[in-house]
Amino acid sequence: MTTTEATAPAEALDDGFHVFDTTLRDGAQREGINLTVADKLAIARHLDDFGVGFIEGGWPGANPRDTEFFARARAEIDFRNAQLVAFGATRRAGGSAAEDPQVRALLESGAPVITLVAKSHDRHVELALRTTLDENLEMVRDTVSHLVSQGRRVFVDCEHFFDGYRANPEYAKSVVRTAHEAGADVVVLCDTNGGMLPAQITAVVSTVLADTGARLGIHAQDDTGCAVANTLAAVDAGATHVQCTANGYGERVGNANLFPVVAALEIKYGRTVLPEGALAEMTRISHAIAEVVNLTPSTHQPYVGVSAFAHKAGLHASAIKVDPDLYQHIDPERVGNTMRMLVSDMAGRASIELKGRELGVDLGGDRALIARVVERVKERELAGYTYEAADASFELLLRAEAEGRARRYFRTESWRAIVEDRPDGTHANEATVKLWAKGERIVATAEGNGPVNALDRALRVALERFYPQLAKFELIDYKVRILEGKHGTESTTRVLISTTDGTREWNTVGVAPNVIAASWQALEDAYTYGLLHAGVEPAE
Amino acid sequence: MTTTEATAPAEALDDGFHVFDTTLRDGAQREGINLTVADKLAIARHLDDFGVGFIEGGWPGANPRDTEFFARARAEIDFRNAQLVAFGATRRAGGSAAEDPQVRALLESGAPVITLVAKSHDRHVELALRTTLDENLEMVRDTVSHLVSQGRRVFVDCEHFFDGYRANPEYAKSVVRTAHEAGADVVVLCDTNGGMLPAQITAVVSTVLADTGARLGIHAQDDTGCAVANTLAAVDAGATHVQCTANGYGERVGNANLFPVVAALEIKYGRTVLPEGALAEMTRISHAIAEVVNLTPSTHQPYVGVSAFAHKAGLHASAIKVDPDLYQHIDPERVGNTMRMLVSDMAGRASIELKGRELGVDLGGDRALIARVVERVKERELAGYTYEAADASFELLLRAEAEGRARRYFRTESWRAIVEDRPDGTHANEATVKLWAKGERIVATAEGNGPVNALDRALRVALERFYPQLAKFELIDYKVRILEGKHGTESTTRVLISTTDGTREWNTVGVAPNVIAASWQALEDAYTYGLLHAGVEPAE
Repeated sequence: MTTTEATAPAEALDDGFHVFDTTLRDGAQREGINLTVADKLAIARHLDDFGVGFIEGGWPGANPRDTEFFARARAEIDFRNAQLVAFGATRRAGGSAAEDPQVRALLESGAPVITLVAKSHDRHVELALRTTLDENLEMVRDTVSHLVSQGRRVFVDCEHFFDGYRANPEYAKSVVRTAHEAGADVVVLCDTNGGMLPAQITAVVSTVLADTGARLGIHAQDDTGCAVANTLAAVDAGATHVQCTANGYGERVGNANLFPVVAALEIKYGRTVLPEGALAEMTRISHAIAEVVNLTPSTHQPYVGVSAFAHKAGLHASAIKVDPDLYQHIDPERVGNTMRMLVSDMAGRASIELKGRELGVDLGGDRALIARVVERVKERELAGYTYEAADASFELLLRAEAEGRARRYFRTESWRAIVEDRPDGTHANEATVKLWAKGERIVATAEGNGPVNALDRALRVALERFYPQLAKFELIDYKVRILEGKHGTESTTRVLISTTDGTREWNTVGVAPNVIAASWQALEDAYTYGLLHAGVEPAE
Repeated sequence: MTTTEATAPAEALDDGFHVFDTTLRDGAQREGINLTVADKLAIARHLDDFGVGFIEGGWPGANPRDTEFFARARAEIDFRNAQLVAFGATRRAGGSAAEDPQVRALLESGAPVITLVAKSHDRHVELALRTTLDENLEMVRDTVSHLVSQGRRVFVDCEHFFDGYRANPEYAKSVVRTAHEAGADVVVLCDTNGGMLPAQITAVVSTVLADTGARLGIHAQDDTGCAVANTLAAVDAGATHVQCTANGYGERVGNANLFPVVAALEIKYGRTVLPEGALAEMTRISHAIAEVVNLTPSTHQPYVGVSAFAHKAGLHASAIKVDPDLYQHIDPERVGNTMRMLVSDMAGRASIELKGRELGVDLGGDRALIARVVERVKERELAGYTYEAADASFELLLRAEAEGRARRYFRTESWRAIVEDRPDGTHANEATVKLWAKGERIVATAEGNGPVNALDRALRVALERFYPQLAKFELIDYKVRILEGKHGTESTTRVLISTTDGTREWNTVGVAPNVIAASWQALEDAYTYGLLHAGVEPAE
């Protein structure tokens, strides 16, 4: 059998503590996630950049996509920090590891490290695996020692360990001992059903460590909302290997979230578990992975959420002007995040002034102006606008008040969008806009793959001759929210649009009973903001 | 001064342990939340139904909406379980509590319980409050004793307690002692910046309890992702009062989430902290409150999220057929949630069969049929459909495969939607549909406040004569998602629609490059599913 044996990468941290990521295997179990091989390769690169020591890539042999992932990862990725890990099960009952096709697929993946899942709960052995307790131990012993004899490093995940320990502590420990004695480097205690609390984890990990002498790891699920704390509780009790997923993705509620776990270890414990400088990339990497899996990043995720260092209360805002460290547990720059002052109708003048400063609009302590802005924000938020998520629209509002008039690059006379579903099943989308720019009236029509796209194209057709900068703008996200949940399509519609010029991104908002009209408002703001920041002089 | 003094409600639990909710005060600090008085009253009713002992309603006097809330809550709500709590600050430096207008507003709110926020971190006293450490103690003593002399029960929130304790433990403890000696019933230790971990909380709470003898409470923020565990860690150390918010709403990352905290206390600690039967209402109440604050309920929230007991992995799905308790930490019915099998292209045949059983469609172990459904789901999910969030569309797909043909109540020939923005700023939305039903061709046109609404109305105009049941159907939610994040309006659009007939709700999905075409598909499925479950015979 020919297999590639990888060596530890040059920049690897010492082996005394393992940050083990299982986003690509266990994280992919999250409802709503469905990863292609290209997605998995992209995530593996991000995780390696971040500096985790181990990346569990999937179950080669069980899933063709995972088999392909291992082949391509070996060929295409030059890992700087991480070692690739293949996941698989112990051999079948009554067989031999050397002849088990599933075990062979693990070796053929070429991964230098293999995680084997083993049953450690007596009822699971009997009901799910349908074999005897002794044969289960033999399956662990045989599979571990076979893989070790083939030159692989082996970690063993004891599935349902904590529930199993409660039911039959001696048997659960015998699985740990068997794996350890057969040559597994780490035995990972898994809270597979996620029902544990930190104090229970600490007690069990301490006892198992004392009784077996094995090197222990922890794999926590978040069903009690304590997965991060449970992971740290295991470390407190002597575990030196933590299994996590990016953004806490995983089945049911999810897994222990990699980011708050490593942030706690680095910042709160003062322990070096990542390469130098990696922590400051954490926010970027968290968001990049969310983008690959096509989930909106959680705004309220610890450390990396856009709200994680956002301050709203008027009381706090005035104190923050004195000293920001009074109101945040760490400097957000350490994790690559930033402090934000929120604009909302709860915000007082201090917040508006700070926000102006953040956006580079000096309100110069002009109390009347600030009061006008506060009023205007209240009025607009009452109508359904939200400036918390649309900084660019807020900046336009702020400048309009500060400068006495809105910046305008064009004026809309009218527009029309037609969407037609034809008997042959094809669709036609056509939009016509009538605009004024630099004293000229322009009428332009365009087609698109939807009404908003057709309007966007008609707008470009009309304006590109006046503002060639528009060619660089690209709409990259478009969100629609119905504001009154109990009226469906008859309610007010809020549209948020994200636009990029290739370098920066900005967000704008539109609100109207009509989704197309709301989109048009957000498009108008997006183009106005983009032209303003491209240094173009306003000229209707 | 005339104030109303409330007495403890008849059904209240004993006073030995307090579940204290601050959704209406601290929870409202969450980015994106903006509560009206009507919202606050609705949430207070839900919290009282759930059985929390205390509901902190806001800061009367500081905020006119909060003043109005207390007046209306006293007049309109007959609390069964909760006592209403007013929040406010200690009196101003150098003044007298009896003459402080803010303290007077607290009494005038009529709330039987008052929570006073006090500084306990020496730097905050000096930099934010700008007074001396001694005067701060005097402010606590004077305000607490004045309120107690007026017949109110007083709790004191020691803001920034844990950071303050680290900086100056003796001073932090002197604030606790002063509050306790002045007559505060509970002194609440607040991790205001949320930077603590459970082991630190346990150590500090134990020491403070031993050194001061005060009854202690805990208020944890979630900045390390450990707020639930921190709250439980304080209880482990002897705290008997927990401050939480529904769904963990709160500033920055949020507060300790009420639901996993009480679920842990009731289920894992075996402690009765809610009235009998309340826990089984938890999922409903969590979602109802999310609806009032107009935030989508977190799908991955512990215990109450729709994903909290959702199983995806093929491996697990087959074992779940043997015994569901092997794969979940509690019976979801205990918290009013349900187990779900997810349909996705990772799902094997076992999941599809279980899902069919859940929907009442017997696949009878027909392997070829199940394989066809698995294939069809894979194919459609690749195109962008998601059946995890659209059970009704999945059921139609399943029935179409099982019955050999799709159920249809009408056939679409074509449709057209026109949206026009007129020079006077008004909008026109007109839709025309051409359909066939029961052998007849129908052409109908309708206007609406947006293109989807106009199409929905035209569809009803066309079909109500054939299917009067349609009159009861109402669209209650409409969500749009762009599937490729990097192309904006040129990408595939997925529309999810929620419909109700007044009794049940169902979700359908449509996918197309065009938002209107995707909406049409989801509408077609919504009406088809609704008519099917109204017992109407299919008849094109």
